Amino acid sequence: MPEILPIPKCGEHRQCLACAFPFWDKLTAEQQEMLCRTTRPVRYRKGERVHSPVENCVGILLLRTGQFRAYLLSDDGRDVTLYRLFGGEICILSASCVMDSVNFDLYIDAEEDTEAYCISAGVFRSLMQQNVEVRCFAYQMTAERFSDTMWTMQQILFMSADRRLAIFLADELTKTGGDDVRLTQDQMAKYMGSAREVVSRLLKYFAGEGIVKLYRGGVTVIDKDRLTKIAYGE
Amino acid sequence: MPEILPIPKCGEHRQCLACAFPFWDKLTAEQQEMLCRTTRPVRYRKGERVHSPVENCVGILLLRTGQFRAYLLSDDGRDVTLYRLFGGEICILSASCVMDSVNFDLYIDAEEDTEAYCISAGVFRSLMQQNVEVRCFAYQMTAERFSDTMWTMQQILFMSADRRLAIFLADELTKTGGDDVRLTQDQMAKYMGSAREVVSRLLKYFAGEGIVKLYRGGVTVIDKDRLTKIAYGE
Repeated sequence: MPEILPIPKCGEHRQCLACAFPFWDKLTAEQQEMLCRTTRPVRYRKGERVHSPVENCVGILLLRTGQFRAYLLSDDGRDVTLYRLFGGEICILSASCVMDSVNFDLYIDAEEDTEAYCISAGVFRSLMQQNVEVRCFAYQMTAERFSDTMWTMQQILFMSADRRLAIFLADELTKTGGDDVRLTQDQMAKYMGSAREVVSRLLKYFAGEGIVKLYRGGVTVIDKDRLTKIAYGE
Repeated sequence: MPEILPIPKCGEHRQCLACAFPFWDKLTAEQQEMLCRTTRPVRYRKGERVHSPVENCVGILLLRTGQFRAYLLSDDGRDVTLYRLFGGEICILSASCVMDSVNFDLYIDAEEDTEAYCISAGVFRSLMQQNVEVRCFAYQMTAERFSDTMWTMQQILFMSADRRLAIFLADELTKTGGDDVRLTQDQMAKYMGSAREVVSRLLKYFAGEGIVKLYRGGVTVIDKDRLTKIAYGE
């Protein structure tokens, strides 16, 4: 369960809600008031489960800081990352229980300590029933996650593993700005939706080629040019 | 290009449109009239391409008879079936060009000779802009295809190949009511989102076990009990 944070004065997060939800202006004054009054700031700890097929439906989460990861999980515990959400983004599929047309087993975890505004499933359901703009918004956000997911599936199904790893490492370097990717092989495999054995084998190959240097808990990229070449074929 | 069929008197397909589209009653009389007038009956030949990332966006297709198959395609020509559509169902992602939040490379082919009503992308775009109910419907249908797709991905990513093949064969028998599955190994592989080599190897194994008998262009299931056991673990 996330920690429920002190409720701010309504004005404080009214602005946030008005910004985050394009349907805000289409709500009646009473609906706006209700949304403001029932929105709760919450905090998820790193690693905490946000949503799963067996848990109660939390509702919509508007991320302020931190990171969520959405993934599929197999019976034997393998998982495949579908997409990530960051501060400023909206987590819609944690409210999938209120959407008739969304029906699949998704898991969402907090990947970092994450603060968010939470609109409970009950409140959101009633808004969706009252207002087609809200319903449309929910399904439109779902379609965006569909696009993200399809992109990931394309990578997983069709791209050769070495290219995927190279792209992953190059992306991480771009994000952090250094030469190091401080992730275990297990984490990399999860992020890439690959098996640890595959990542491990490829990293050894990259190391043998002088592209990376391995150490416990991460890798240093020592030949960025070759990495980029593998990644983008340049 | 599909064959454009003679335009029926409006009353003839008015009933179809009213049934197929839950937003029908929310349209103005003018919008209903426009939709009726611009809806074209079309016929796709078996094997014909309906939609691809490079072709012009056809719009929404309401299937009357036949079958569509939606799939992903890799650079080197491998494809993975995501879902199928049959008579009475609506093909929404052939109108993805008019939906801002839908942005991925999908292919759709006619798997059988297929007759459909076609609402062109232009007409549908203008309806979506005029009426939030239409917009909501489009995104809701997209979310349903998302659910179908996720189910398929679960199977492809996590389920052992022998179980998938057994389920596929059992499903086909249920559909056709006989003991035969008249599909080539290539077709089976495509339908299952698997490689032909994998299907071929497994069928040989099933044949060796006395579960199926192979012939050119199909298989006969001779031990349904064992097939069901592999498929559903009963």
